[in-house]
Amino acid sequence: MKLNFKAIFSILGLLLLLNGGFMLLCLPVSLYYHEEHWISLLYAGLITILIGAASHFLTKGKTSGGLSKRDGYLVVTLGWLCMSFFGTLPYVISGEIPDFSNAFFETLSGYTTTGASILNDIESMSKGVLMWRSLTQWIGGMGIIVLTVAILPLLGIGGMQLFVAEAPGVTPDKLKPRITDTAKRLWLIYLGLTLVEAGLLKYGGMSYFDAINHSLTTMATGGFSTKQASIAYFTSPFIQYVIIVFMFLAGTNFTLTYFGLHGQLKKVLDNEEFKYYLGFTLGFTVLVASVVYMVSDSSVEVAFRNSLFQLVSIITTTGFVTADYTSWAPLLTVIFFMFMFIGASTGSTAGGVKVVRHVILLKNSILELRRQIHPNAVLPVRLNKLAVSSDITFNIMAFMIIYFMVFALGATIISALGYDFNTSIGAVATCLGNIGPGIGKVGPMDNFAFISAPGKWVLSMLMLLGRLELFTVLILFTPYFWTKH
Amino acid sequence: MKLNFKAIFSILGLLLLLNGGFMLLCLPVSLYYHEEHWISLLYAGLITILIGAASHFLTKGKTSGGLSKRDGYLVVTLGWLCMSFFGTLPYVISGEIPDFSNAFFETLSGYTTTGASILNDIESMSKGVLMWRSLTQWIGGMGIIVLTVAILPLLGIGGMQLFVAEAPGVTPDKLKPRITDTAKRLWLIYLGLTLVEAGLLKYGGMSYFDAINHSLTTMATGGFSTKQASIAYFTSPFIQYVIIVFMFLAGTNFTLTYFGLHGQLKKVLDNEEFKYYLGFTLGFTVLVASVVYMVSDSSVEVAFRNSLFQLVSIITTTGFVTADYTSWAPLLTVIFFMFMFIGASTGSTAGGVKVVRHVILLKNSILELRRQIHPNAVLPVRLNKLAVSSDITFNIMAFMIIYFMVFALGATIISALGYDFNTSIGAVATCLGNIGPGIGKVGPMDNFAFISAPGKWVLSMLMLLGRLELFTVLILFTPYFWTKH
Repeated sequence: MKLNFKAIFSILGLLLLLNGGFMLLCLPVSLYYHEEHWISLLYAGLITILIGAASHFLTKGKTSGGLSKRDGYLVVTLGWLCMSFFGTLPYVISGEIPDFSNAFFETLSGYTTTGASILNDIESMSKGVLMWRSLTQWIGGMGIIVLTVAILPLLGIGGMQLFVAEAPGVTPDKLKPRITDTAKRLWLIYLGLTLVEAGLLKYGGMSYFDAINHSLTTMATGGFSTKQASIAYFTSPFIQYVIIVFMFLAGTNFTLTYFGLHGQLKKVLDNEEFKYYLGFTLGFTVLVASVVYMVSDSSVEVAFRNSLFQLVSIITTTGFVTADYTSWAPLLTVIFFMFMFIGASTGSTAGGVKVVRHVILLKNSILELRRQIHPNAVLPVRLNKLAVSSDITFNIMAFMIIYFMVFALGATIISALGYDFNTSIGAVATCLGNIGPGIGKVGPMDNFAFISAPGKWVLSMLMLLGRLELFTVLILFTPYFWTKH
Repeated sequence: MKLNFKAIFSILGLLLLLNGGFMLLCLPVSLYYHEEHWISLLYAGLITILIGAASHFLTKGKTSGGLSKRDGYLVVTLGWLCMSFFGTLPYVISGEIPDFSNAFFETLSGYTTTGASILNDIESMSKGVLMWRSLTQWIGGMGIIVLTVAILPLLGIGGMQLFVAEAPGVTPDKLKPRITDTAKRLWLIYLGLTLVEAGLLKYGGMSYFDAINHSLTTMATGGFSTKQASIAYFTSPFIQYVIIVFMFLAGTNFTLTYFGLHGQLKKVLDNEEFKYYLGFTLGFTVLVASVVYMVSDSSVEVAFRNSLFQLVSIITTTGFVTADYTSWAPLLTVIFFMFMFIGASTGSTAGGVKVVRHVILLKNSILELRRQIHPNAVLPVRLNKLAVSSDITFNIMAFMIIYFMVFALGATIISALGYDFNTSIGAVATCLGNIGPGIGKVGPMDNFAFISAPGKWVLSMLMLLGRLELFTVLILFTPYFWTKH
């Protein structure tokens, strides 16, 4: 079957229309603060809307036969790239990030909800453009929700089928018709939580502007801040605890939050991914806080809060920072580095490998030892009391191995550009996992400004790979994808 | 079925008899150099032989029903531990390594053919004890040959079945009766190559003592040297090239060497693992040598020789050193670190993950992308033109994932003992991969003397895990292994 390029362009056009609309949303902010850059935002929005409209309406009605699976792969990757390409306009037209490599890195870091930044002086940026920067993350989060609910399971990516079977309103035999319903419900929760968090942050002492921006980037597990010092700028424990809670919620499967809000708490507490997610976070917080308490002169509360904040920030792939965790103790650097390979729940806005995959890998490893003794016994991994098919376990293992291969290749390329061992593995782990801060020279107190343009493009591709669950992008690089089927 | 402890003790006794015999082999060396320590070697040998004889003969004839698979697992792990326990006697009795943790680390590092050492002044050691040190590696190499040919395939460990099907004199339906034959043939090659290398090294200018010791530890892919500076001490290019060739041979599947010696070169060149092993080595040598040539003022020949030497040394898990590869360039540190996770061929004396596993993982990763598009197509990995069953691919993926889990756990523990990030991941990668030198403070110019006793015990266990292909040891820690079947 031929690729349906008309349908693909129609969808990309629609995405640009949406994108342009969001750009215009930043106009009032710019006008309110009497910034000269309002005109740049207007231009950026209009250009994006015009091109989007052209692409959408010139191809509309000409989509014959709908989208195939192959079209699906293409539209997802192109969608993210296309949004990021046009998303650079507010930065470039305003001249606030004049260099295109920098602007693209910052924008893709937004849409992939990574949060790695090339900005050296965030406070000097205009409010309208900063608003756009936060919005790219929030839009990316919206995109991921629809991706996990509606697209990835149909493409059969890395065990994501598992997730969908448990989404509200979805029955395996009636997947398609109700998927828009599901996405709408989850978006409503996403929007609702964003508003509640913004309210709480304002109540805690942030300005309206800071409250809204941080709320947008928390719920997207993005991590862009309006302050160069990230959350370390806001010393209020109340603000930090609010952000911890909402990062954790943003990293929780949104369907579980839906059940929780509908009083079905048992469904939440019975979910194995949630149990491990909570368990990893709390278990390691106790460990990390004990070490921090021993090696520093912080009080118990400060040690606990900093440890919890950083662990939740990294496991949810948000990337906000309240302290330099790489300076605490070598053990903690190892733990934080490992956490970059975990990621939070499926069906959340978090990137990375995801807890459910680790749960299945862990259980399968133990079972594999039993299978050695009894090679003929059928011992499937059980998740939420159901047997996981060996095909899915196989696919998840392949995902993890490809993840490590991409990591190794990425680290080789970045180190070939001249960056030291720790900076290379740190930058690659954090970009591939969509987190933000790494180790080495891209640690929690640093940024990515000093990385050369080639390095930024490689890291951008890694962000995209990680965000789109690897397969979606990699498949486009197989000759097989492009041959006739 | 109950564990057959009598049969297990009988085998362990036999191993000790052999071990004691080898200790006595060091006596002439000690006497020749008029060392006072000959008496320690005699005591050590006699104690080991006595206890071995008691254990073997007191249980002999009482083995009912032979060994089950579970007995097999136990005997392999206990065998290595028991040999290492008694193998410390020459060090401890002579007082040359008085501390037991140190002596055990050095001995297990020998039997596992790792080559990580706690010795700060190797030249001050007596020749008899150094001879014993080299022999532990050579015995370990012998053990590995019999393990890969005869034991692991029967236990079904991590795709090792693949290897055996191709061993000379083995047909799948007649595995057991001819396995002793196969082992004998391979041992003959092992012994023969050791003698040839010793001859060449002597010819190249080494003393008889140095030639024999280095030959023993090369063929075992061990890496213990009689010089603190390792092979950097021997500046002769001839000697270094001889060692490169024999390291490479020691990392080649011995059955292929057997075919090669019998003129069946086509069988060698058609073997995919060999092709990749050769390809990885040569490809990366060109890359590394180019970088070394650019960043240093070495001649082309020196850059090539040092690069080839270090890459072969690490991919074969030998661990000899001619230069500090961590000082060359960040890119090369990343490459050398990654090479620690490769390992050479199955059916060789090399440790680590093994090339064939990587080949299957690589091919499967590409196929998995195709399987996404056509989930119902049956696309098995093909190795040497034959389809690999998906069970074996599944098992190899699980092996790799467990390998990374053990690595992560090991690095966490070592860093918890206070060692920095690079030293921790370097020490764990090199011990688990049975290599020798790592990165950080356990780099190619350093040793393991400064690691605390708990650290040494953890690293010792990692060497054992790596050497015995993980499963063999890990299975003993499952409650399931110890319950009745």
